Amino acid sequence: MTVANRSPKRENLLQAARSLLHRQGLRATTLADVAVESGVPLGNMYYYFKTKESLAAAVIESRLGEMEESLTAAGQSSDPRARLENYLQAMLPLADQLARYGCPYGCLAQELVRMGGAIGRKGASLLEKQRDWLTAQFAAMGAGRRQAGELGLELQASMHGAIVLGLGLGDPEVIRVRLKALMTWIDGLDVREVGLAR
Amino acid sequence: MTVANRSPKRENLLQAARSLLHRQGLRATTLADVAVESGVPLGNMYYYFKTKESLAAAVIESRLGEMEESLTAAGQSSDPRARLENYLQAMLPLADQLARYGCPYGCLAQELVRMGGAIGRKGASLLEKQRDWLTAQFAAMGAGRRQAGELGLELQASMHGAIVLGLGLGDPEVIRVRLKALMTWIDGLDVREVGLAR
Repeated sequence: MTVANRSPKRENLLQAARSLLHRQGLRATTLADVAVESGVPLGNMYYYFKTKESLAAAVIESRLGEMEESLTAAGQSSDPRARLENYLQAMLPLADQLARYGCPYGCLAQELVRMGGAIGRKGASLLEKQRDWLTAQFAAMGAGRRQAGELGLELQASMHGAIVLGLGLGDPEVIRVRLKALMTWIDGLDVREVGLAR
Repeated sequence: MTVANRSPKRENLLQAARSLLHRQGLRATTLADVAVESGVPLGNMYYYFKTKESLAAAVIESRLGEMEESLTAAGQSSDPRARLENYLQAMLPLADQLARYGCPYGCLAQELVRMGGAIGRKGASLLEKQRDWLTAQFAAMGAGRRQAGELGLELQASMHGAIVLGLGLGDPEVIRVRLKALMTWIDGLDVREVGLAR
């Protein structure tokens, strides 16, 4: 990391870009928008980020780091079932924000993958990291490789779908209801009894 | 309906707008883009659609009509379980398109609700219509009012989540796997045994 990478101005720009990309998407955001939001003059900005692509790459790295942190936090328990419930529990207080702006990972990944190429793969990696972690918890609960993969995908789809509906219906309660239902499901799930994943 | 509403030029503009809004979203689409895509000169376009808002309203009406048609088609069976499976079955051949561009209802609703006001409520109405139909099928299967609502929301979230992952991971197979798993779930679901919806 260079000195420029650690500067407070770079950090302000990155935080502004994270927020704008979440609220309005990458396509609709200009470097000038980020400069205004951050309070860093546009002329200074080019010292840190010369293109929208380099800024988008920094936002993806930052979101990957944030997801890593939330997975590590949820993973503190020795019980995989509790780890999954921790992860869902941590999303509950974010329901209002998620219903207002959507999922910062899902929305970003969807927008990036549409752009294709290296940046599209970077976007997909956000969702892959989440899916792999969820799958690993079901495997640790005793599910076979294939079943763990199906359960991981099911839980991930259920979480993202709840956020789509919360945003699309304009109702954060939808997100809370679904997250609680998913916790109840995990709590009662016996992976040895599940023949076919739902 | 006026003569202008039934003209082939208006229909071309509407089809172009439907396609562009699905592929790139409302925000990123200009009236000029729609003119180019439709082959109707921009000067003529203003006769049919003077603002992006009026064009967006026509796209929403068209999507509502299309959803109504797909629900009616799925509803031909006398068995509510078969009606739900018909609906999911009809989505299967669309998996590639859904993984490429996302859900034409979910993406539109999410974008519109962010704009707020009357157009935001119109967007939400797309998802409300779908949710109410799904809920009605579970009620017809014998679920109580609250349970039917929870199951309807669960199925709707699962469908939309599958599309988010298909698009975000760039993998239509994710959508097919989840749709088939949901059909298996509906096939085996005994609503009298379900105490808490997942």
